Order: sequence, then C-alpha cells, then structure tokens
Amino acid sequence: MMIDVKKKILIVGLGLIGGSYAEALKRYGFRVTAITRSQRSIDYALERGMIDAGASFVDPELVSEADIVVFALYPHIFIEWLEQNQHLLKSGALLTDVTGVKGSVVYKVQELLRPDCEFIGAHPMAGREVYGVENATSRIFNGANYIVTPTAKNTPEAIEVCRELGLLLGFANICELSPEEHDEMIGFVSQLTHCIAVSLMTCNDAEHIEQFTGDSFRDLTRIAKINDLMWSELFMSNKKALLDQMDLFSAQFSRLRNMIADGDVDGMREMMRYSSERRAKFDKH
Amino acid sequence: MMIDVKKKILIVGLGLIGGSYAEALKRYGFRVTAITRSQRSIDYALERGMIDAGASFVDPELVSEADIVVFALYPHIFIEWLEQNQHLLKSGALLTDVTGVKGSVVYKVQELLRPDCEFIGAHPMAGREVYGVENATSRIFNGANYIVTPTAKNTPEAIEVCRELGLLLGFANICELSPEEHDEMIGFVSQLTHCIAVSLMTCNDAEHIEQFTGDSFRDLTRIAKINDLMWSELFMSNKKALLDQMDLFSAQFSRLRNMIADGDVDGMREMMRYSSERRAKFDKH
Repeated sequence: MMIDVKKKILIVGLGLIGGSYAEALKRYGFRVTAITRSQRSIDYALERGMIDAGASFVDPELVSEADIVVFALYPHIFIEWLEQNQHLLKSGALLTDVTGVKGSVVYKVQELLRPDCEFIGAHPMAGREVYGVENATSRIFNGANYIVTPTAKNTPEAIEVCRELGLLLGFANICELSPEEHDEMIGFVSQLTHCIAVSLMTCNDAEHIEQFTGDSFRDLTRIAKINDLMWSELFMSNKKALLDQMDLFSAQFSRLRNMIADGDVDGMREMMRYSSERRAKFDKH
Repeated sequence: MMIDVKKKILIVGLGLIGGSYAEALKRYGFRVTAITRSQRSIDYALERGMIDAGASFVDPELVSEADIVVFALYPHIFIEWLEQNQHLLKSGALLTDVTGVKGSVVYKVQELLRPDCEFIGAHPMAGREVYGVENATSRIFNGANYIVTPTAKNTPEAIEVCRELGLLLGFANICELSPEEHDEMIGFVSQLTHCIAVSLMTCNDAEHIEQFTGDSFRDLTRIAKINDLMWSELFMSNKKALLDQMDLFSAQFSRLRNMIADGDVDGMREMMRYSSERRAKFDKH
C-alpha cells in the first residue's frame, strides 16, 4: 500500500457519494474531514463518526492540512472552488474527484491547478436514487466499477494512489481509461439510456394507455424519474460524446423502423438474433 | 355466471399460454381438451390432469363437441387453421383467441367465419421468458390485464362470456378496447419498448464498452433477448400502429437531441421534470 494511514483526507461536498467515501475511509484509521455547504450534513456526519472534523465554509486549516482532497461536487462548482481556493492547498497535495464526466473536467483542472499539486480524475460508478449524506453507505461501492482517468500529466505514483483509494473504498473492479474513452463509454451505457427513458416516458401522453403498462415498460422507464439539475449538467458536460451515441442509436432505430415499414422480416430477425446473442452474455456474469 | 361448467372447452395450441388456460379452467370442472402439433405436449398435459383428452392432429370429434374454442396460435397459423377446419365446428360455438395483435386478426376472422359461430377477440397480457406447456401455470395471470376486443359484429352474450373467461382464469383487470385502441396501446407499451431494447443492444458493438454496463443498461435491454420468429410476426401484424408509436418516440428523442446540441438546458430540465412526474405515478400503484 502506498497510502499511509497517517494521511489526512479532506472531502469537499458531503452528499451521497462524498459521505460514502467518508464512511469507508474512516474505518481504516485515516483522519477524514469534510467541507460542505450545509452545517446539518456536517453535524450528521460528526455524530455518526463518519468524519473527524468538518466545516460549512472553506476552512483554511482543513484545506491546508489535507494530503488527499476528494471533490464530490457538480463539475462547474468543482472548477469554481479550485479557482477561488487552490492557494490554500498544501504543497504536494493529491486531488481527485468523483465526477461522472471527464474530458470537460480533467484537462481544465490540470491546466488551472498549481504546479506543486496533482489532480487525477476518477469515476466511482455507483449511486442510488436518493441523495444526501443521510443516505450515504459504502455498500453502494461493492460490486461496482471504479475508473481512473489519467492523462500524460499524471505521475505513476498518483495513479497508483488513486487505484488504491478505489480498493480501499471496496470497489470490485478498478480500471483505467483515458478521459475520452471514459466519456464515450459513459455516453453509451449511462447517458444514452437516460435519454431513451426520458423520451419514452414523455412521447405519448394518452392517459388510457398508461393503465396497461407492464414489466417491459416499467423496466425501460425506471430511470425516467431523474434529477433534472444534475443530469442536464452531465449531458452538457459530455455533449459531443453523448450526441455521437444518440446518433448511433437513432441510426439503428431507424434501420429497424425501415425494415418494419418494408416488411423485411429476414433483416428484422437477423437483428433480433444478434440482439439476443449480445444480451445473453450479460446473464452469464 | 353465464358459463355453465358443463361446457366443453377446446384449446388449440398447447404452449405456455394455452397450457396455462387449460390448467386454470380444468380446476372449475369444465371438460377441457386440446389440439396441438406435439404429442409430447398432449402426453405431458394428460399426465398432469391439465386436460381430459387431446390430439396431435385435428381430431373431428374434439372440434365438433366443443362449445368454446380458444386459439393460442401465431396469428397466421390461427387464420389458416380456421380456413381449413371451420366446417368441423359445432353450430353455435364461441371462438376466442390470445393473440397479441388485434386489428389484423379480429376482422379477418369474423369475415371468414361461418355465420352460425361467433368469434370474440381477447388478449391475456401475460407471459414469461420461457416457452411450452412444461412452463405453463395459471399463476402468470394473477395481477395481469385481460383485454376483450369486441366489434360491432359481437353479441352482448359473447362479450359477457369472454369477460367471465378472464375472471375464471384469474386476471386482476378485465377491460374492453376496440381492436384499434388495443393495437395502439400494445404498439406503445410492448412493441415500441422491444424495438428500443433491440436497437440499443445492437447500435454500438465496441466490446470494451460492454464491461461497464450497469443497472440502467441492463434494465433497458432485459427484453433485448427476444424470440425473433414471434416478434417479427407481431411487428408485421401491427405495422401501422407500431410505426406510429416509433415515430412518436423518434420525434421526442430528436427533440431532446436538439436541446442538448443547442445547449437548451431549460428545455431539457422541463422535459426531465415532466418525465419524473409521469414516472412517479407508477410507484404509487
């Protein structure tokens, strides 16, 4: 292990993910602190022993003592925070984040950051349909993917520390992708699926139809109940990759539509067999 | 009750749904018989007491004694069967079906059927991802919708008998829709969702992306493992209604795409809030 338990870890943004990081890391004996807007969140975490100290303002002492700083903020708030407060960071501090988009964040942060600190992006692919530190639990990391997104600016040591952090948090798979590969992947498996669910849920508002929705429709629209503030920002922060994935889907959906219109049963059946084959692989895992 | 337990019920096509009908109806004391292609299916049902008699060919005695005949066949086989064998039917027999599309079946059958018999369409909205009489169980009807699709040609008595059949089978909701309303509804809640799942599953075949699929992607593609023979026929039998629903979805998906491309965050958030509101209603049921 490269991470010494004497290291001090500061979490900026104590919500569902930040709180779950705190809970997981505290158990190893690290000094874990938090800065977040709501004093109630700090109080909640202190009472439950999830953090050793915390503040609802940018406390210079908490920032300057931290060896590792985890940012669990919306992308644009993360960047603003750094612009305003990076002068407080300890020299040599390692910064990481939990942001769900990477290309639009990682390079900007590495560009603006002081040269005596290092930022390495990470995406813990875990979540719940509820929010806030009150719902935090490190159990959400079990079985999930943790993706480190290094660039040419990162040192091997920082990459290793970031990977170890994923292990300590309890993730099942730790892997590395470039920010671009990450954004393509997340555009497909997560953002595109949310776009589809929202479109399906809102494309036909006939009330009499809704009474008949069965399992298929419910499955496809579970994620149509969506945090509009967070997801619109995630979509905008990954615009290019998401539009590419939406266009791939649209092209395939149009192909199927044309086969139905043209009565091309063979083409349809071939697409369905390919679909079944690809989907069947999932059941084996 | 209008259905006398002395009535003789013949099921043509003893698969998952036909077998589940047999199992449910036999318990009330009806004489239940079956005609299906596979002798093994007949033997299986006889051994388990699901039917009183059966044949793997069109047995004139079984057909001519039946008061109620339930067709659990693919649409085109159902129509062929009637063309070839309707001369064997008892005068006054009531025919019904389980077909998942209605407009392309109901009128054609009513048109070709002998005037001394009556056909009333029904759609038991139940199923499993497995097939055959070996998987039949009337438990699949519990909590499900049973839709009767009468036309101007149907008598009130036949409609009532058909509704009662749904009750006896154990369906939670019995309702009536015109064949056109039925097809619009099924085009939306069932066929469109399958088209989306198949398109999503086949639109991006990058292997490295698949490793990262999480709950959202799995939910949206569960039904992408699909019986290509049955679904291509269902799609073709409901072509117009399905294309209408696909076009509604495409238009909404394009709207969302353009909002993302144009950076219209307000429009996006409005669509997401509407989506959340509509989806939240499902959780109350």
